[in-house]
Amino acid sequence: MAFDTPLALENGAELGAFTVAYETYGALNTAKSNVVLVTHAFTGDQFVAGTHPITGKPGWWEEVVGPGKPVDTDRFYVICTNILGGCMGSTGPREIDPKTNEPFALKFPGVTIGDMVNAQAHLLDALGIEKLMAVIGGSMGGMQVLEWASRYPTRVASAICIAAAARHTPQNIAFHEVGRQAIMADPDWNEGNYLAQGTVPERGLSIARMTAHITYLSEGAIERKFGRNLQGKDKISYGFEADFQVESYLRHQGKSFTQRFDANSYLYITRAMDYFDLAARNGGILAEAFRGSPTRFCLISFTSDWLFPTEETRRVVHALNSVAANVSFVEIETDKGHDAFLLDEPVMADTITGFLNSVANDVGIEDKGQ
Amino acid sequence: MAFDTPLALENGAELGAFTVAYETYGALNTAKSNVVLVTHAFTGDQFVAGTHPITGKPGWWEEVVGPGKPVDTDRFYVICTNILGGCMGSTGPREIDPKTNEPFALKFPGVTIGDMVNAQAHLLDALGIEKLMAVIGGSMGGMQVLEWASRYPTRVASAICIAAAARHTPQNIAFHEVGRQAIMADPDWNEGNYLAQGTVPERGLSIARMTAHITYLSEGAIERKFGRNLQGKDKISYGFEADFQVESYLRHQGKSFTQRFDANSYLYITRAMDYFDLAARNGGILAEAFRGSPTRFCLISFTSDWLFPTEETRRVVHALNSVAANVSFVEIETDKGHDAFLLDEPVMADTITGFLNSVANDVGIEDKGQ
Repeated sequence: MAFDTPLALENGAELGAFTVAYETYGALNTAKSNVVLVTHAFTGDQFVAGTHPITGKPGWWEEVVGPGKPVDTDRFYVICTNILGGCMGSTGPREIDPKTNEPFALKFPGVTIGDMVNAQAHLLDALGIEKLMAVIGGSMGGMQVLEWASRYPTRVASAICIAAAARHTPQNIAFHEVGRQAIMADPDWNEGNYLAQGTVPERGLSIARMTAHITYLSEGAIERKFGRNLQGKDKISYGFEADFQVESYLRHQGKSFTQRFDANSYLYITRAMDYFDLAARNGGILAEAFRGSPTRFCLISFTSDWLFPTEETRRVVHALNSVAANVSFVEIETDKGHDAFLLDEPVMADTITGFLNSVANDVGIEDKGQ
Repeated sequence: MAFDTPLALENGAELGAFTVAYETYGALNTAKSNVVLVTHAFTGDQFVAGTHPITGKPGWWEEVVGPGKPVDTDRFYVICTNILGGCMGSTGPREIDPKTNEPFALKFPGVTIGDMVNAQAHLLDALGIEKLMAVIGGSMGGMQVLEWASRYPTRVASAICIAAAARHTPQNIAFHEVGRQAIMADPDWNEGNYLAQGTVPERGLSIARMTAHITYLSEGAIERKFGRNLQGKDKISYGFEADFQVESYLRHQGKSFTQRFDANSYLYITRAMDYFDLAARNGGILAEAFRGSPTRFCLISFTSDWLFPTEETRRVVHALNSVAANVSFVEIETDKGHDAFLLDEPVMADTITGFLNSVANDVGIEDKGQ
């Protein structure tokens, strides 16, 4: 949806006009009370379920969203937007700057998780949706969930935050910085103007993705999936080929990523995550972000997630408890690492199903199965 | 020391001639029974103590080696060599290939931890030293320690292996692969021929170092040292400057590293570590690497070391126990991460002191303090 009204940004600048690309699944009920906003992770997009129109692969959250799935599109009206700063149709650095008729590139303003959420709120306003039955997301999607609950408490009946945190840790900032430096070191990045100059910083973007991908897996998962197994050979080469399966896998992940993601979006979105710190915005006291909240919270973390460790989720739980918010917290035992939120995790599925059923009951949505 | 005899390598090739650069500290006793070989970590060198002649900084193991230190140079004769494949005087990819009169670059043969140890053994032979009172090292230095004990059991009275493993884990291989790809993606790498072409792949090498550096620190250490503190500013920039202290620190680490380390050495040495797998060489049974060993072992790990986690050291301890080797094992509680072995760690210092005193007593070395 294209907006010709300006969007005021947290950094003081404004976008003169902006577009929010989005998808919906299921049907809106007449009371408009069955809306579930799904917020996507860093490199996700609005194509939650079904077949992705560009990659031809299944939507990124097929395990969780669809008919009969935990976020049941037979009952709920699911909306997912491409985030502001993204590269799948919403306004971001690769879109055309109307002032110059060239891609924004580094002229795109710095955006925050709060800006992403505000853009989503504008979309909901335009769709005539006042209140969300639930907002749900994992990783950076979970950051948006917390931001929604903090910024628009009365619009959010429930908030499901998975494998996320109320701030980006310094270790995570460090990994992001490596990725950004890899992109900006690539001569094909051309100071950000690669689209205008017809180049693609594939090497830098690929290295950024490879680094990030390691952090999405647990050490146990890497051991289980690849171990020290060789890739299509019996002997080591004593050279710099991809001798090991894990090397081959990472190279593939890096390369295929460059075909679907924009390098400048990578810079902007990592920066938005780095800057995310709900406590800092509330005088250093995280609980103040949620004081008086009427929202029901469900927080989920995974034991082997070292990118967004349980400790970070627990900080949110403690903050919510200290202001007597309604909060459920589940730490799920798994060796799948951060990526667990995207995978078949029965305890996660059951937790989401049960929580959403209860919330649906609260807001008076009939169970079609009954 | 320059050798004009060939060095047979594990990959089947040989180096026609080779040089082992080394430093010594303390005095060799007449029985030649007080020799401690210190093996250095990945980016270390032979300058263990004193002032480094190139960087002007203290030696890399000042905390551990010196007069009155745990490896007491008033009692012991300490030898440290620059590893084969390194860039501080021992034969490596940046040295001149006598066949072409140009730097070896990628014509340098792939070397292994075993080759490094063999080169050290040649040096000891040339110095007339048959037996080591101890071999001691951390990280890749610890890999060399295990290799020494496995390859030359009768030459090693005792082996102190710190923050290391008997194999490189797939997660570690993954991080190394990212670093190599960053170097090889830098156009200034020039397919490895940068020295001949007068370029330096500074950007790639810097990114490799930044990535690796994150793995040397624990999440807790990063939190304690930097947190989310900004670097020399009050407000975030909403851009891609080094807003955070952790970013500024990593950039500095990356940049300064390029002034002291060779990019091709980075490739070769990471590969040697990747290939290290003592069990694989012994039919998949690690214990076989040590069966019948007369060596006294001391193994040390650190609780917050996620690069070489205690679990990996425990595998070595179990293997040693299963062949009734003489082994001490200490896991040290610290939040300093992998780098702890380079830092002021009193329990590590006491452990090394006590162990070496006992070994010195075994081999009949007088305590000068008595």
